[in-house]
Amino acid sequence: MITRMSTLFLRTLRDDPAEAEVPSHKLLVRAGYIRRAAPGVYSWLPLGLRTLRKIEGIVREEMEAIGGQEICLPALLPREPYEQTGRWTEYGDNLFRLKDRKGGDYLLGPTHEEMFTGLVKDMYSSYKDFPAVLFQIQTKYRDEERPRAGILRGREFTMKDSYSFDMDDAGLDAAYRRHRQAYINSFDRMGIEYVICAATSGAMGGSASEEFLAVCENGEDTFVRATEGDYAANAEAVITPRAEERPIDGQPAALEYDSPDCETIDKLVDWANGAGINVDGREVTAADTLKCIVVKITRPGEEPELTGILVPGDREVDMKRLEASVEPAAVELASDRDFATTPFLVKGYVGPRGLAANGVPVLADPRVVSGTSWITGADAEGRHVVNCVAGRDFTPDGHIEAAEIREGDPAPDGQGSLRLARGIEIGHIFQLGRKYSEALELQILDENGKRSVPTMGSYGIGISRLVAVIAEQRYDDKGLNWPVSVAPYQVHVVVANKNAEAAEAAERLAGELSDSGIEVIFDDRPKVSPGVKFKDSELLGMPFVVVLGRSFADGVVELRIRESGEVREVPVADILDEVRNLV
Amino acid sequence: MITRMSTLFLRTLRDDPAEAEVPSHKLLVRAGYIRRAAPGVYSWLPLGLRTLRKIEGIVREEMEAIGGQEICLPALLPREPYEQTGRWTEYGDNLFRLKDRKGGDYLLGPTHEEMFTGLVKDMYSSYKDFPAVLFQIQTKYRDEERPRAGILRGREFTMKDSYSFDMDDAGLDAAYRRHRQAYINSFDRMGIEYVICAATSGAMGGSASEEFLAVCENGEDTFVRATEGDYAANAEAVITPRAEERPIDGQPAALEYDSPDCETIDKLVDWANGAGINVDGREVTAADTLKCIVVKITRPGEEPELTGILVPGDREVDMKRLEASVEPAAVELASDRDFATTPFLVKGYVGPRGLAANGVPVLADPRVVSGTSWITGADAEGRHVVNCVAGRDFTPDGHIEAAEIREGDPAPDGQGSLRLARGIEIGHIFQLGRKYSEALELQILDENGKRSVPTMGSYGIGISRLVAVIAEQRYDDKGLNWPVSVAPYQVHVVVANKNAEAAEAAERLAGELSDSGIEVIFDDRPKVSPGVKFKDSELLGMPFVVVLGRSFADGVVELRIRESGEVREVPVADILDEVRNLV
Repeated sequence: MITRMSTLFLRTLRDDPAEAEVPSHKLLVRAGYIRRAAPGVYSWLPLGLRTLRKIEGIVREEMEAIGGQEICLPALLPREPYEQTGRWTEYGDNLFRLKDRKGGDYLLGPTHEEMFTGLVKDMYSSYKDFPAVLFQIQTKYRDEERPRAGILRGREFTMKDSYSFDMDDAGLDAAYRRHRQAYINSFDRMGIEYVICAATSGAMGGSASEEFLAVCENGEDTFVRATEGDYAANAEAVITPRAEERPIDGQPAALEYDSPDCETIDKLVDWANGAGINVDGREVTAADTLKCIVVKITRPGEEPELTGILVPGDREVDMKRLEASVEPAAVELASDRDFATTPFLVKGYVGPRGLAANGVPVLADPRVVSGTSWITGADAEGRHVVNCVAGRDFTPDGHIEAAEIREGDPAPDGQGSLRLARGIEIGHIFQLGRKYSEALELQILDENGKRSVPTMGSYGIGISRLVAVIAEQRYDDKGLNWPVSVAPYQVHVVVANKNAEAAEAAERLAGELSDSGIEVIFDDRPKVSPGVKFKDSELLGMPFVVVLGRSFADGVVELRIRESGEVREVPVADILDEVRNLV
Repeated sequence: MITRMSTLFLRTLRDDPAEAEVPSHKLLVRAGYIRRAAPGVYSWLPLGLRTLRKIEGIVREEMEAIGGQEICLPALLPREPYEQTGRWTEYGDNLFRLKDRKGGDYLLGPTHEEMFTGLVKDMYSSYKDFPAVLFQIQTKYRDEERPRAGILRGREFTMKDSYSFDMDDAGLDAAYRRHRQAYINSFDRMGIEYVICAATSGAMGGSASEEFLAVCENGEDTFVRATEGDYAANAEAVITPRAEERPIDGQPAALEYDSPDCETIDKLVDWANGAGINVDGREVTAADTLKCIVVKITRPGEEPELTGILVPGDREVDMKRLEASVEPAAVELASDRDFATTPFLVKGYVGPRGLAANGVPVLADPRVVSGTSWITGADAEGRHVVNCVAGRDFTPDGHIEAAEIREGDPAPDGQGSLRLARGIEIGHIFQLGRKYSEALELQILDENGKRSVPTMGSYGIGISRLVAVIAEQRYDDKGLNWPVSVAPYQVHVVVANKNAEAAEAAERLAGELSDSGIEVIFDDRPKVSPGVKFKDSELLGMPFVVVLGRSFADGVVELRIRESGEVREVPVADILDEVRNLV
């Protein structure tokens, strides 16, 4: 069947939609692939739906190739299982909650670990039933605080989520590796440029996890790659090498100084050098100072707790890294009000000693180890302390990854240094372990007839997001540019000649292409100018465009390759074969 | 790809699930097609999902064949457009409503007239853009009061809904007829026995509408078919022929009688005949009495209003017919408390005169026309009135369809009489007209450059419900029985011979069938007895079962036809061709 532009439910727009921030969003709306229905909620128009379905199809094939079995769970889910695992609360405002007419609590599923675990518990009872990999391609909901960038971060979206169930860790490892390969195959088939990064597990719980990040300037995630070796990680997952401890004995005693107007690190460094203070015989730098940032950490179901975060003075606290470190707890900076109502918090002069003295827990950057010496706040207006030695003058309650990662930081595996780049999460694979199977009491009889708890993996691909990611990586100033594998149509036939013969020949050609299994969109609009048709074909972005234009009178048609911009003149008699070869 | 029972995510159950009421529900759960996740909310397991997708595929093809363009709208919808059409309120408790983190009002879409209208308004502006038929196959939500019968009436379900947009009535008629034919084609391909019934439009508004009802004893809908002619209608849509008016002049005056203990029609008839009262010179029958049922009608956003419903005494009020007549208002019987707190309502003796005297509106059956004479309540304990003539002693405020339909009632078109049967709604086609396009101000420039409001049709098919409907119409005491068009697999290959050669031959046969494009499920479970395998194959209900059993040693396999129960012995060499011919 040929799709005709004359009747297609499509209107291309010249102007970018007001709410659009990123190129993929602008172009997908302008080219009539999607339309906004509400903030973060989109309708799929004919072209967009076709690309979405092709992406689904690729992922489905790769999941079936690793033995995944497709099922489909509801989006409207009962509260109970999410209560059992704690996620009813942990998800916070990100969860859409609702009540039914009888007052029963429901949620719109953000991910389905609980439900899959319950289903396996309901169906399986013996180790002989394992291993199992189940997947679905289904609509998910998250009430994002700032839905942005169109379908890159929607509140209703399509995901492939799968879950592996194994009786032992070796089985989980194998399932994880198979998923990893299925993801590589899927993203390769879609022509995406991506990196596989070490990741944090966040609210999912569990241990090993990796993220597939599409490389993209407009991405919300920062990741690092090492200049040597294979190390790559989401910035949130980078582990700072722990500094070496130093002997405490023989270090000079801590001394307090008057240091007026030193609320910033720069001023503090200037003051120290002006006062003749030095470190190991050299001038003081920002890295010799210790920032003490006061935050409030709110664990699920608990009251916020004041906490001090210590980082070397030459680094900022990266709130996303800090958030990832404390998840599922939430974290925010202490407010002016907190400072005003807490007498021992002296703004600009907070130090670890004062916090500890007042029972406030203190978590330190891995560079702050026993024997390291710092210049830090003395918990009094205009006062700092010098030679403040960890393990002697203060002892952190633990370590935390909160400091920013910087270009050139050493790679955690010692192989070269780190480079920073931006990306969009397109896939995530987790070794969950037994968090969910234990919480939901999934118990299976093992070979010895004893009850055993299976170990699980959880694996996601952001199906609808991929439409935007592919657009984002491949667009140009003329419009979209799809790879053959996910283009709504492979060939765009354009009549750009008012001659009735050209129109008939185009009709015939479109029919022949379609009959040979090629998907064709046919611009048969009689009253639209060639210029508008060309612009539209570039905006819509099919990989191959066949134009019956002026040279048609000479028996020649144009074959335009969208990606390279190449234009070939092809005799009418050869065009069918030429296109078939390309597709 | 062959699906192997040894690894399939499937456990068949011997016992019916406790919550199941109807055979399709019991069997679909027992055969591992679906599982309950919450009341009225189901998960689709591998086999069920395959049948669901096949039904979707058939409907998609037929919709595309009539020029329908597929799009996909969200399920999470903003309140505003539903507010504009009044349905935010009208849907009452059937609507799942929720708030987002910012307090914004949302709903889970029960149907998408508002959103499609808004989308067309957003995209189209000229009469040249019309006609248009848009459809989606998508998840819908209704918070049913009594979700029952599994996926026959779920709270989350899949529908195909489509919407036609035309500039004139002739266009709407054509779109409606094309949809009607697409539905006939779809249901015929699925082997469903159905009737096309005149229907009421309910909360959808609009004028002409027909329902496709699958004939089914367990159906919730009652429909009628005439013994002669083509008349068929949902019981709720049957129009009672209006009785002929009779002259009032010359009729005897109304007379009140003491009629103690006559709270029921039977007692009233006995009393009347005992008292020597007659009608047109014959004995009184129940049809000569007039029931006056007091109800409360609640219109959207208004307080309940007491109303009298008059029906001949030989008929009950059919609450479903009454509900359909007053929709979108809700209706309930007056309660004991209403009687207790309303002095002029005398239970068992309510009549139209008393209601009218107290300002209560009275709606009458179409048999209650001017000049008809009745025995009815006199609004006082133990008192009735005889010769109470409509148009003289009381005048209804209007007519209403509320009386039950009975087997043998005359057909509204005068062709024979009515027969009653039960059915399940599988499709509904509506000529909506301009209700939604007007409410949402969809204005289009017509040929003369003037603003014109398009007319709309709305058309639904209950996709997920069809899985249950087909099961319900075709099951037998052994299990499910699918037509080839929607069976999860066309062929079920069963090894029922412990001989390794038989297992190898089965493996080979399954592979060959699969290679020739046939969908195969293969019971390769090594430790399961032939008896259990046969029972499972009958329960699962694939149309053709190939058994490699005892006679395999003689070079013969069994081909079982699930529907007819026929068993053919086929030489091993011929089985591939035999099955290919059947499929």
